[in-house]
Amino acid sequence: MNIATRLPASDFLHHCRAEIDQKLANYMDQAGASQRLQDTMRYGLLGGGKRIRPALCLAAAEAVGGQRQIALAPACALEMIHAYSLMHDDLPAMDDDDLRRGRATAHIAFDESSAILAGDALQAEAFRVLATAPRLSAEVKLAMIKALANACGANGMVGGQAIDLESVARTLTLEQLENMHRHKTGALIEASVHLGALAGGVKDAALLDALARYARALGLAFQVQDDLLDIEGDTEVIGKTQGSDIARGKPTYPALLGPQGAREHLARLLAEAHDSLKGLGIQADALHAMADYIVARSH
Amino acid sequence: MNIATRLPASDFLHHCRAEIDQKLANYMDQAGASQRLQDTMRYGLLGGGKRIRPALCLAAAEAVGGQRQIALAPACALEMIHAYSLMHDDLPAMDDDDLRRGRATAHIAFDESSAILAGDALQAEAFRVLATAPRLSAEVKLAMIKALANACGANGMVGGQAIDLESVARTLTLEQLENMHRHKTGALIEASVHLGALAGGVKDAALLDALARYARALGLAFQVQDDLLDIEGDTEVIGKTQGSDIARGKPTYPALLGPQGAREHLARLLAEAHDSLKGLGIQADALHAMADYIVARSH
Repeated sequence: MNIATRLPASDFLHHCRAEIDQKLANYMDQAGASQRLQDTMRYGLLGGGKRIRPALCLAAAEAVGGQRQIALAPACALEMIHAYSLMHDDLPAMDDDDLRRGRATAHIAFDESSAILAGDALQAEAFRVLATAPRLSAEVKLAMIKALANACGANGMVGGQAIDLESVARTLTLEQLENMHRHKTGALIEASVHLGALAGGVKDAALLDALARYARALGLAFQVQDDLLDIEGDTEVIGKTQGSDIARGKPTYPALLGPQGAREHLARLLAEAHDSLKGLGIQADALHAMADYIVARSH
Repeated sequence: MNIATRLPASDFLHHCRAEIDQKLANYMDQAGASQRLQDTMRYGLLGGGKRIRPALCLAAAEAVGGQRQIALAPACALEMIHAYSLMHDDLPAMDDDDLRRGRATAHIAFDESSAILAGDALQAEAFRVLATAPRLSAEVKLAMIKALANACGANGMVGGQAIDLESVARTLTLEQLENMHRHKTGALIEASVHLGALAGGVKDAALLDALARYARALGLAFQVQDDLLDIEGDTEVIGKTQGSDIARGKPTYPALLGPQGAREHLARLLAEAHDSLKGLGIQADALHAMADYIVARSH
């Protein structure tokens, strides 16, 4: 059933979440060598989360005419990478966060070594899931693995986290700030849309390019909204400590552009995301709705 | 040139090392988003190391009649996984080691966050390298990715490290000790031989099984020798702190079987590795030589 084209984002996300959470739980049922390691992996992966990346993956697959089910494995792989990155980013040696999604971070609930190992294992599991994804050709699976590895490695997400740590207490230009976020959060959001499109059977380079433009604008918009929530949000609602970016001296969009300037920048990025989807001849309602949701979200 | 069949292990390893080190350096030349991250990755990956896993991969490929060159990419991927695991295992929250390969561990030479991120990025890079390996079919590459992901995840290497941390100051049975090592070091050594055989074009299940028996015995032998070096080796020669396993209360073969019992166990495993290669109709000289080298090594 194609539900993407007739439901608002909240309903689309609600449907996706149920499917994704069930599938993620299934993957975690495969017993690991250590019970404690498995428990930590489950804690980091299954403990809530908005599931924005997998939902984008499913929305992109449906938008290009594919069945949502065929994108479920790559959607789960993306969430595994995201969950591992949160567990590692929260570590004392990194962002040193005690609170995530409204509860203790993994290294607080378990311990540091468990959080490191659970993250490591989730990254491996993400690639295993892609390599064994059902109903996709070997070529498509390899293209996905290559795209995900690029998106989450030294030239993508991990590179962005490294830049982030180096940028604490430094003043960045808008260009430098965007470069950091394009790596740190943008690369995986772009990969989410790209993997969904690949699962949906897209081979047309122009269509992939247009979807990449959408995802790039969306990835930056996501971060601007994150920064705005850090100064305007409520700790209980956002699920992490309000004001923690500022307290750590992290460069943010509101600090650079002012709150009003950041809101205007956000509006421009949202418009760019919507514009990128025009005239493609695809069923982009869910992708449009996801863009609106990401910008309007309160956590 | 097939050099595996007419040179002793030291010469084979010497040749392999030069090829592998060059190739690894090439992979690291691809600029990452952060210079410091790249430097840490290079430090962990290119700073020495015996290159046993990649050499086993090349030896297996040649043994089954493949060209060594075709196994070079998977060989490098295996070493990237090994290097990442060392950087993470050495962290203060894990084994807390200051010395590795005769010099400061990555988190001492750089810092903890750099060591965590460099490990994370090397894992992603390993899968990227496999997905883009030249002159191998999509099916073979996918089989390799699946095997590597299994070998290094929760049911393999990372699971073994979790068991290891849980076993400190506990008395294990021989069965429990072997289960830990089969995961922690054995899985990646088995994958090294398996990936080499796949690159060399093996499809015959019986041959893959025989090579797996060889690799399993070798993986355990490797660990027994490691434990013996920890009590009998010289810190300067082994490149890490002598006696550190005992100081941490880690269960070891000599502690369980006595030094003489451990040496006898080692001899049995070595004989099993050699026996596994008999009657297969392959050019197994380099695999035999690698087994002798691993048991006789002084570091």
